[in-house]
Amino acid sequence: MTNTQIIKGKVKTVFTTSEPDKVLIQYEDRVTAGNGKKELWKEGKGKVCMDISALLFKELEKHRIKTHYLDTFPERIMSCRKVDIIPIEFVVRNVAAGSIVRETTLEKGRLFNWPLVEYYLKDDEKDDPLLTRDRINLMGYSEELDLITHISREVNAVLKGIFRKIGITLVDFKLEFGYDSEKNILLADELSPDGMRLWKEGTQESFDKDLFRKDKGDILVAYKEILSKLEHLCN
Amino acid sequence: MTNTQIIKGKVKTVFTTSEPDKVLIQYEDRVTAGNGKKELWKEGKGKVCMDISALLFKELEKHRIKTHYLDTFPERIMSCRKVDIIPIEFVVRNVAAGSIVRETTLEKGRLFNWPLVEYYLKDDEKDDPLLTRDRINLMGYSEELDLITHISREVNAVLKGIFRKIGITLVDFKLEFGYDSEKNILLADELSPDGMRLWKEGTQESFDKDLFRKDKGDILVAYKEILSKLEHLCN
Repeated sequence: MTNTQIIKGKVKTVFTTSEPDKVLIQYEDRVTAGNGKKELWKEGKGKVCMDISALLFKELEKHRIKTHYLDTFPERIMSCRKVDIIPIEFVVRNVAAGSIVRETTLEKGRLFNWPLVEYYLKDDEKDDPLLTRDRINLMGYSEELDLITHISREVNAVLKGIFRKIGITLVDFKLEFGYDSEKNILLADELSPDGMRLWKEGTQESFDKDLFRKDKGDILVAYKEILSKLEHLCN
Repeated sequence: MTNTQIIKGKVKTVFTTSEPDKVLIQYEDRVTAGNGKKELWKEGKGKVCMDISALLFKELEKHRIKTHYLDTFPERIMSCRKVDIIPIEFVVRNVAAGSIVRETTLEKGRLFNWPLVEYYLKDDEKDDPLLTRDRINLMGYSEELDLITHISREVNAVLKGIFRKIGITLVDFKLEFGYDSEKNILLADELSPDGMRLWKEGTQESFDKDLFRKDKGDILVAYKEILSKLEHLCN
């Protein structure tokens, strides 16, 4: 059996397996920001992201949310159901931070009464631009949009609850979805502080990739603290 | 009577008058692109933009669309009703071109069956970012959004018809609106090829600021041709 590399992303590599409906995803010991402009090798980072992702995927499955997750293996390898990724990133926001602050008059830290679901084109060459619903409809993704928006809100409800129990505010996070061979929509990609903003409750202290973006601390220490608290809560 | 400069924009300057509800807007002989990064002094450009704007404002008024336009004077000066500008730019698109092509998978030249109205934050420092309806609602502009979107479509219907009669496709254009002292919403700013894409019918040949953005020709020649055809049609 040979595993052929099919996608080399910025921090993950996807390999085929002997089973056509299954892939292996290796989490790399790398961290990148600004669409790859800033990057760092960081030993142990792949494993902690994989472990947090595995734990959260399993929690979501308990809440009947379908994900691509199957299992984890040594060498930072996660086995997953193979999906055709929908090229739209779904960003759920509970609190204003990051690009929504830079691109509006909203203040950092503003709490949204109703979680905001936003859409970005998954295209590094175009720098993942913000999409409007009209643009998505014109691009031909209107059918799945409402359904995936709904699933994203469900994911948010589950994750927000988990993080609240460990004293963390889930500020925002990015989700990717794909179709399996039977046209089920599965939550895919990863679920780690690389794709989330996590603030210590009642503060704006980051436990996520903003530490790296803004040179404000060691992400490995922060990510491991998150993992340890999640393991204590969930296992 | 002294006229005090109140706003110095990239290509227009606004002055107060002795009448509190009236301003004078001087159209400068300058052309800029890329949020001012590229710029050129161009004698005669101010007057042609003012004349096209005046002509189109008058045509819109004939169709009962309220505008800030009052009159024109020597030295590229237009008198207008004073408005408080709403800090959202309304962009109407009949055909895909420019940023919507760069930021989606849509191809340049794609015709929209239903004109698209898009929203941008009017804020040069933030580089006029695209807004979603959700973001506008959170910023507190939900009340006027539907009404101004409706007016923008009416403006589009009138302008599209005028340009069609002179053999030009109105690809897209930017509008700004403001409140007068009696809280009426008036179409404001200017209506010139500086804020429009105009293609020779059946082609993608530009008669607008893209000539300057892409160094493809003399805007003054193109703008004057547009003005001359409009004058022939409307006067």
